[in-house]
Amino acid sequence: MTNPTAAMLVIGDEILSGRTRDSNMHHLAQELTLRGIDLVEARVVSDRHDAIVAAVKALSAAHDHLFTSGGIGPTHDDITAEAVAEAMGAPIGVRDDARAILQAHYDRSGQDLNAARLRMARIPDGAVLIDNPVSAAPGFSIGNVHVMAGVPRIFQAMLAGLLPGIPGGKPVLSQSLRVERGEGDVAEPLSELARAHPTLAIGSYPFSENGVHGTNIVIRGADGAEIEAALVKLSERFAA
Amino acid sequence: MTNPTAAMLVIGDEILSGRTRDSNMHHLAQELTLRGIDLVEARVVSDRHDAIVAAVKALSAAHDHLFTSGGIGPTHDDITAEAVAEAMGAPIGVRDDARAILQAHYDRSGQDLNAARLRMARIPDGAVLIDNPVSAAPGFSIGNVHVMAGVPRIFQAMLAGLLPGIPGGKPVLSQSLRVERGEGDVAEPLSELARAHPTLAIGSYPFSENGVHGTNIVIRGADGAEIEAALVKLSERFAA
Repeated sequence: MTNPTAAMLVIGDEILSGRTRDSNMHHLAQELTLRGIDLVEARVVSDRHDAIVAAVKALSAAHDHLFTSGGIGPTHDDITAEAVAEAMGAPIGVRDDARAILQAHYDRSGQDLNAARLRMARIPDGAVLIDNPVSAAPGFSIGNVHVMAGVPRIFQAMLAGLLPGIPGGKPVLSQSLRVERGEGDVAEPLSELARAHPTLAIGSYPFSENGVHGTNIVIRGADGAEIEAALVKLSERFAA
Repeated sequence: MTNPTAAMLVIGDEILSGRTRDSNMHHLAQELTLRGIDLVEARVVSDRHDAIVAAVKALSAAHDHLFTSGGIGPTHDDITAEAVAEAMGAPIGVRDDARAILQAHYDRSGQDLNAARLRMARIPDGAVLIDNPVSAAPGFSIGNVHVMAGVPRIFQAMLAGLLPGIPGGKPVLSQSLRVERGEGDVAEPLSELARAHPTLAIGSYPFSENGVHGTNIVIRGADGAEIEAALVKLSERFAA
């Protein structure tokens, strides 16, 4: 059995203009790896309706899950919910359950649930709300698309609530070996090892610290014993 | 005249597994914005030949420029050059100019230009080399695709050499205003402003620091006087 696959879609002009550095992709990648869900592709698009619709259609069709971040706040450039609804062929409008959550939140804080804030209660028909323990305004899942906020603290809180309900696969295990040789010197032994262990993913990452040049070798796979065996082979090779 | 558009393709399993956090996208976004080139889309794909070929074809066809990072080292999982060559319909092999650069570099450092390192001299026919002042192994441009290393220090050095040769557009100007009101309270005035200034991009970014909640409003566009006029309008509105 292979692991479920996933894609991520980051939505926001501020990432593509370099104003803000995205951190949600890295967080999602780590969380999915822990749960045995393979993140296969990620995209960043700007706040344009057509771009979001096209990306949601392509990525939700190609993978078991699509996680999105950004564009679900109260302002005119928050257009993710409408675009996802269109991509999934669902009508969208203010939903009573989402409105009740917002009403309670703003009543508690003595603020007005004005027209702008009410936009955050616009949820596609048939979607399941995703809890937002930070600032109330919910995300939602529709089909295999999970729509979350862009603010990292809120994205992380939403994801923490969402993930336990998504079936995972075999967590990917990994071991690493640090060798003080350049990538060009470890490349041939790594090729041999990769050919001998086709189910393992073997990566090499050059480093340079305090004048020492070397390579971190990472062996990843689902079978811990095979990873261990490959690592022993590699250690012996480089001890010689 | 509109600005040239660009896309980025980040290649590497290590990003999608969460092992490494990409920083090249953020750097490229800032550099392109300074030069008036609009970064419209970014993608991250894993070290799979078909995924790289498909992404290079799609993104190079849709935009004026495509910048890639990752996958041009000496190891078995460095497959970017082959994939780009296939996507662009160009033959690829060890090229004399690239081999000479590597030979000189390894002669100086007393290392062997072995078969693995020689893979870094595989360059598509018709490509122009991109200088690598850090570790010699060159990147290359073929058509509108610019292929660079994934190691951030090398990516940045290659980009610094490449960008002056690429015609830019009108740099995007921006001004920002910090208001201590929630996004829900600034949303309506921002919508009005956006309608009155359709050529400006107006973004809002909530913040929460030391118990103070507010919104950073960023106005971006090509016309500095119009940005200034919009900002004055906004300041007056929120001073009331």
